Formats: sequence, structure tokens, C-alpha cells
Amino acid sequence: MTTINLTLADVHRIAWDTLAANGCNDDNASAIADTITVAERDLCHAHGLFRLPGYVASLKSGKVNGNASPSVEQLAPAVLRTDGDDGYAPLALKTARDPLVKCAKENGIAAMAMIKVHHFAALWVEIESLTEQGLAAMAFTAYTPSVAPAGGTRPFFGTNPMAFGWPRSGQPPMVWDQATATQARGEVMIAAREGHELPEGVGIDRDGNPSTDPNAVLEGCLLPFGGYKGASIALMIELLVGPLIGERCSFEAAAADNKDGGPPRGGELLIAMDPTKFGNPEDPFSHADRLFSELLSIDGTRLPGDRRVKNRAISAQEGISIPQSLMDKIESLSG
Amino acid sequence: MTTINLTLADVHRIAWDTLAANGCNDDNASAIADTITVAERDLCHAHGLFRLPGYVASLKSGKVNGNASPSVEQLAPAVLRTDGDDGYAPLALKTARDPLVKCAKENGIAAMAMIKVHHFAALWVEIESLTEQGLAAMAFTAYTPSVAPAGGTRPFFGTNPMAFGWPRSGQPPMVWDQATATQARGEVMIAAREGHELPEGVGIDRDGNPSTDPNAVLEGCLLPFGGYKGASIALMIELLVGPLIGERCSFEAAAADNKDGGPPRGGELLIAMDPTKFGNPEDPFSHADRLFSELLSIDGTRLPGDRRVKNRAISAQEGISIPQSLMDKIESLSG
Repeated sequence: MTTINLTLADVHRIAWDTLAANGCNDDNASAIADTITVAERDLCHAHGLFRLPGYVASLKSGKVNGNASPSVEQLAPAVLRTDGDDGYAPLALKTARDPLVKCAKENGIAAMAMIKVHHFAALWVEIESLTEQGLAAMAFTAYTPSVAPAGGTRPFFGTNPMAFGWPRSGQPPMVWDQATATQARGEVMIAAREGHELPEGVGIDRDGNPSTDPNAVLEGCLLPFGGYKGASIALMIELLVGPLIGERCSFEAAAADNKDGGPPRGGELLIAMDPTKFGNPEDPFSHADRLFSELLSIDGTRLPGDRRVKNRAISAQEGISIPQSLMDKIESLSG
Repeated sequence: MTTINLTLADVHRIAWDTLAANGCNDDNASAIADTITVAERDLCHAHGLFRLPGYVASLKSGKVNGNASPSVEQLAPAVLRTDGDDGYAPLALKTARDPLVKCAKENGIAAMAMIKVHHFAALWVEIESLTEQGLAAMAFTAYTPSVAPAGGTRPFFGTNPMAFGWPRSGQPPMVWDQATATQARGEVMIAAREGHELPEGVGIDRDGNPSTDPNAVLEGCLLPFGGYKGASIALMIELLVGPLIGERCSFEAAAADNKDGGPPRGGELLIAMDPTKFGNPEDPFSHADRLFSELLSIDGTRLPGDRRVKNRAISAQEGISIPQSLMDKIESLSG
């Protein structure tokens, strides 16, 4: 495979230019380009430039508003809502952050319901923006059906990621972000593009038979991680980002979507907690560091998310490598 | 195996009498007996009378206060704390409920940090007490190390259950409660007692080798469900019930525990949300019922927790069957 090498500044410029050429104003293009750039920085290619054609598809079809102007309102003392104005999630998340941080610090815990957003990135991005402010946080979002429920053989849940972060002083936060599917759909798409087989147990084909062919699984469905327990978490996520906050569940998002290849409209829920407001007589961050040290004293262990952090050093030194075919495709989007 | 049949009233009386004979006052004995009785009612024997010898062991050793008088304080507008006064969790949870319900309804979301409790039951009990009041809720608790971290081969995490519930009108709530271990330790203990093999993948022996022998796994350790993803959830739970709220992580609880066979002192975190305060323009409960109907339209599916609810009809009609050997053991506790 022919690849080309880019700096992070290249990544940002390519993303911004492409989005701006396809109807995004500066606020929206900048927020999305920031999100694409941090994904590439952490070598999470599945959420980087690889997503740009999908972003553009929905700008072109008119499904997503490239001039979205998100707004925040307070629904209850500890519950806020951001209306994303049918735009992509990054600008809505940027708009939501400071009000959520303030609300969580005042109340100890606070929730942010995000509606009318199109989420097409990783959740650790918004989790890190909260851990940077000293908050512990959870994030949840759904998508469109691609994962079988426990006992079933057809898609019902989205890949439905959940993320959690804990702030650390003087060190990167501990952040994990994981699909309730065995793999994220983006990873299966990359495997299909690159011609890799999937591990056993990741998914089933359209007839419900186990398959390691990524194309067959994309036509069939993924399985939840850990069997019925992963499916329980996926169902919780549907409830939190659908009925709780008044957005579409995965099955509703699929029914309403125009199938242009871009992300459906959906919801996201953020829950942020201020660890200094929960009564630990000790410094909660020192206490957590003791937990992390004890964990890492066991051979073979590492903290979730530390590979992403290590990848930052690699991308800073070596730049980003992307397939020439992807670069050609991206260039054609602005033609 | 010789078994005896009991009514739920028998279960409650046996539990109450045994606890009262071993130093519990009426408030504590009643709350624990209630919890044991609902576990037997739902045929969750692993959290029923089977636990009574453990409850008594820690009353006798003086580790647990049978006359505990839990108290609630407000730490922030949306964060409450219940100090369990070193008693068993059921009375602390009973004390915590109304203040948490009120706080969640006022603020939209609220957290309850439970400290100085000894938790020896299932989390769905407290989740149901919140869904009965119209709240969606999550619960988390840790224990003592019995589960290997991702990549490791010795115990670090507790079985660390997480539970979630969603209230429904005119129907039982949707509630799931699952260990982040492949199986709850109580299930492995029952398998050991009854001489059953464990499924593959549940645990490893003391040398780190996979084993299906429940006694070997009790000496070695359990594995997290779903590999590293289950381990991530287990780590989140340690952070939420340890450093966040100022209680002991599993490894700290084990170091401080007197190993009398009863549960260690630990923490629990409850997060309750009022679905009517999150801005769904539709009734959130009708919206959720649509999600449940769509899920159940897929062959082979069921809602999490529905087996427990069905078991209530069985226990109401047929009573509870427990091993004669357990009954003999319980009778000896009051001798």
C-alpha cells in the first residue's frame, strides 16, 4: 500500500480546507478539524482523516448543518442541555464544556444532554477536555443498529461506546473509551479496506453465522463484548441517549437517516463529577495514584489509554502515515 | 442433596432471629432480613440465606456493628453521603434512599456516596428501591481482590458489580446487576458447594492456568468479563467507590480486613437521575417502552432481569428450597 506522510499541521489544514470547501463555517470546520487532528495524533486512524469523506457526504446531502450554532440551556440545577443545531458534535461539545465544568463544580455532579448532534468521532476527546479541568467523567452515545442483542441474530444496538476518565495531576489522565461491540465499526471498516480478517467472535454474517470476513460482518452484525453483559451496557446506553434525553435510539436514528454515508443524528450524555466534592478526607488524586501504582506492580498490566498517550510521542516525531488512496479521495472532495 | 422448603415469611424470620441472636438490633436485623428475603424471593440464592453465616461471622468478630445508626449529610448541592457506622449495607441503604430521591428530583441528577458499610448483597435491591420512585439509577461497589486485571494473573479487582435500572409504569422496572467478573464470586462458591464445574474462561488457578474447578478458581482468581473491556469497567468502579468517595479500594479493603469470613468494609456509589428532568419532549417512559418493544420483537431476546421477576411468581407459589446442610449450619449459629 502506498502511503504518504503528514505533519499534524497538514492533517488539520487538509481537514479544515475540505470541510470549508463543503459548506462548513470556520467555527464548525475548526472544531471538526481539531477532533480529526487529535485522533491522528493518537494514531486512532479510524477516527481521523478516514472519516472525512463521511463528514463531507452529510454536508453535501444537507443532512448536517455546516453552519450550526449550538446553544446551552439549564433544565434542572444539575442538568444542562446542548442543542447541536443539527451540526457535527465537535462544536457542540466545545460549546458544552465550560457550562458543564461550572455546573459540576458547583453541584458536585452534573449531566449534559447533547441533542441534535451528529457524532462521528471518539468519546475520549470530550472526556479529556473534562479531565483537564479536574473532573471525572463518563460519556455515552449510540449510533445505528450494527450489534446483535443478547440472544438475537440481527442488528439492534449501535456500537454504543462508553468512555470514562479520571484526572491526574502532573500526568496524563486515565481515560478509557470502548465500544460495547466487540470491535468498533470503524475498526471493521478499516479491516475491510485493508483486507484483514477479523478475530473469531467479533461478528456474524447476514444469516447469523459466525464470520471473520469484515465485509460479511458489515453486512451482518457485530456481537456485544462479553456476551449478555456487554449487551446490558449497550441497552443502558440506548436508554441514556434516547428516552432519557429525548433523542433517537439507534433503531430510530437508522429509520430517520437519509443513508448518505455520514453519521445519523443522535444524542450523547456526559456525566461529570468533581472528586473534591465527594468527601474523601485524603486527596482523591493521591488516593487514585496509589491504586494505579498497585495495579501496575502486577506483571503484564498497563493503564487503559496509555498506548494512545505513547502514540503522541510517535506521531510528534514521525508524523502521520495515511494511504495515498485516502488522500486521493479526500482531494477529490474539494474538486 | 436433602433440601427443605420454606415460605418467604420463614426466610425472613430465620434471618431476623439469627441476626438478633448475634448482636443486631431490630433496625439492622430487619433491614438485612428484608434484603435476604427479596434475594430468596427472586431465587438469587447466592445472596440469600447462604450469606447468613458470613453475616454472623463478622458480627461475632466485632468487625461489623450490629447496632449501626447510619447518618446522611450533604456534601454539595447534588452530592450526599451516608456514613454506615460500620454496619451492614441494608440499613444504610434504607436510610439513604429518601434523601437521594429528593436530591435527584430537585437537581435532576444526584449522587450518594456510601461509606463505612459492609456490602454483602445484590445491587439490584437498592436500584429497585430507586426505580420504584421513578428514578433511573446506577450503582457500583467493590470488594476484595478476586479478579485479575487485563494482562495480569493475580487477583486485583473485586468482583466489582455494577447495576442499572430504568423505571417503567405498570410494569416491573428494567434492572440489570452484573459482576465485572465473568461470574459473581457467590456463584463460584455455590458451584464449589454443589460440586459443579465452571464454564471455560471463568477463572484461573493460583498458578495462573485456566481452570474449571471452582475450588481452584477460589484459590486463584476470576477473570473480568469480556477481557480488557470488563477490566476497564472494574477499574472505573475501584475509582468511584475508593478514591472518589474516600473509601477503600479492593486491595486496601483486603489489607485492612480481619478475614473473619464476612464482608470487608467498603464503599458504594449510587447515581440517580430523574428522567422527567432531562428535556425529552415526549414522555421518557413511553419512549423507553418503544425501545423495549422493538428489542423484544427480535427472536431470542428478553429484557435483562426479567428472569428474576418471573422467579417471584415461582417462589410465591412453591416457596424456597434450601439445602438441609445450610439450614443446619444456620441453626447452629444461634446455639
